[in-house]
Amino acid sequence: MSVERMLTGDRPTGKLHLGHYVGSIANRVRLHQRYESFFIIADLHMLTTRNTREDIERVAGNARDMVTDVLAAGVDPARATFYLQSAIPEVGDLNTLLQNLVTVPRLERVPSLKDMARDSGKEEMPYGLLGYPVLQAADILCVKGQVVPVGKDNAAHVEVTREIARRFNNLYGPVFPVPELVAADTPSLVGTDGAAKMSKSRGNTILLSDDAASVRRKVMGMYTDPNRVRADVPGTVEGNPVFAYHDVFNPDRARVDELKERYRAGRVGDVEVKEALVEALNRFLDPIRERRARIVADRGLVDQLIVEGTERTRREVRQTVTEVRRAMGLTGAYTQVRRRAERARKAATSSA
Amino acid sequence: MSVERMLTGDRPTGKLHLGHYVGSIANRVRLHQRYESFFIIADLHMLTTRNTREDIERVAGNARDMVTDVLAAGVDPARATFYLQSAIPEVGDLNTLLQNLVTVPRLERVPSLKDMARDSGKEEMPYGLLGYPVLQAADILCVKGQVVPVGKDNAAHVEVTREIARRFNNLYGPVFPVPELVAADTPSLVGTDGAAKMSKSRGNTILLSDDAASVRRKVMGMYTDPNRVRADVPGTVEGNPVFAYHDVFNPDRARVDELKERYRAGRVGDVEVKEALVEALNRFLDPIRERRARIVADRGLVDQLIVEGTERTRREVRQTVTEVRRAMGLTGAYTQVRRRAERARKAATSSA
Repeated sequence: MSVERMLTGDRPTGKLHLGHYVGSIANRVRLHQRYESFFIIADLHMLTTRNTREDIERVAGNARDMVTDVLAAGVDPARATFYLQSAIPEVGDLNTLLQNLVTVPRLERVPSLKDMARDSGKEEMPYGLLGYPVLQAADILCVKGQVVPVGKDNAAHVEVTREIARRFNNLYGPVFPVPELVAADTPSLVGTDGAAKMSKSRGNTILLSDDAASVRRKVMGMYTDPNRVRADVPGTVEGNPVFAYHDVFNPDRARVDELKERYRAGRVGDVEVKEALVEALNRFLDPIRERRARIVADRGLVDQLIVEGTERTRREVRQTVTEVRRAMGLTGAYTQVRRRAERARKAATSSA
Repeated sequence: MSVERMLTGDRPTGKLHLGHYVGSIANRVRLHQRYESFFIIADLHMLTTRNTREDIERVAGNARDMVTDVLAAGVDPARATFYLQSAIPEVGDLNTLLQNLVTVPRLERVPSLKDMARDSGKEEMPYGLLGYPVLQAADILCVKGQVVPVGKDNAAHVEVTREIARRFNNLYGPVFPVPELVAADTPSLVGTDGAAKMSKSRGNTILLSDDAASVRRKVMGMYTDPNRVRADVPGTVEGNPVFAYHDVFNPDRARVDELKERYRAGRVGDVEVKEALVEALNRFLDPIRERRARIVADRGLVDQLIVEGTERTRREVRQTVTEVRRAMGLTGAYTQVRRRAERARKAATSSA
């Protein structure tokens, strides 16, 4: 049995933080061992909400940071193909061909799109943003992806891909595998300020690339229980971001339980709890830092991986689009015209 | 001053009839003398409402019929570039890049799209159909069209093109001319059955390619005034399709006025009025038939024109898309990654 293909990836928003790690990267590190893995750097998707020259100028740097972080997090470059979406114009062609296989009301039922429009400050939904799931279908289907790891938002998008793949195959013949959703356990991580989500725009992140001193500084400044004015006041563990991080990143469960107990009883200072977290986080980040150091020392490695991956993927996409156009009959239409033209030219030449 | 570029064309629905002639072809025959003219065979647009294998299988034959009719109607092949839209995949790429420059509510305000969905029996609007004006923008802008002849439906579409061109130029620099609408006088012609519009699906057409016998048969079967049971009953000229055709196609105004007067007074039979129309129509169609005979005798001419036009247009489109990607900064993003990869490779080679 041949190895199945997985497609995963992100818009190139730059350096990854612990929220990304918990939400998707950890899962990809695990899954990429099992599949032939394509990692898309989805800059065309970025354009659906951010499309100024300034936004686009940051793509190259952000792509490099993102790939560096993914490799540092443990993805084996020998087992992954990274590619820059916009450098494969055939994706736009496929996107255009798939757009008639899904309806506007169907896309309007995808819950996340309205949130994305609002979050990006758009008063009216850009046409391209409503088609976000169609472009995603083009991404997945252009490499004939069979497996897509999804979180809760993404699942509705990939459902659209499955419908488009089925609809295409029904209309034109079996070209696409209908991709399977691998539901990933994708908890979200609170920010260092206690906000529901860690995000760059709120400045409440701890980056995978932060050094030990930055981690210490950020943890020491973390939001805890606001009612706890002194170490001997009993504190609340639930919803306390410091303990949320301990739960995720501190493998020493006994120590975490002991800290929680003392915290609830007012028998431990915030500083001690935070020092323990600094230690746990640095222990978690150290192997990532070591891998990063090796990657960064290999100058141009990340760029080379992106170029090789993009070239490789482009070959795959061209092959797929050729099959798509043939199945639809579009190749046949033009070939028919060309053959007749050619025959006429030959007849004219031979009779002359 | 250089000659401006005009883009015009149709979906490949097959043979053209008198309704097409009056509605758009006559106008194009006049305009194409003045501009550098691109005639699109818009099969990707056809896919927004008709996208089965069977629909697509008819594209090549329909394209050939359409171009033959346009040439027979008087378009000079030396002054026109015909091209098959689907044979230029870069159009799909450009379409994808332009989709973020217009909003869903803006497209929902284009009046004709809902009618098109309904007329094609779609219960829900296909996503691609809502984007019909965006794909049209891609068509017009990919050849940097400066002039677009429009009827009443089409004007709203081309307004979207103008907005997209302006928005692109504002965001990324001046790449596109903002095309001018040449408002065309585009009356619609009633069908032979008296229905408001001549259309293939109603079978109420007279084709540009009909021979004299077919024209006679169709005219003799035409709907007239239903209250006029005998030649001596006064008849109604207004809304009577036979007189509507006389008004458009019979240059002998005196004769038409005289027939109308006698018709109103009950002093002429339907047959005489129809015979006069047969004569007028055949006199109108004869030069078209002569040109058609020459075109058809030149076997493969139409196919060659489509192939040469498509190749020429594709070169233009590639050039435009290159400028578009450069202006947006997408070329720069990938070039930056490639250059770094290249430099690293060279450094590694020279130090080895």
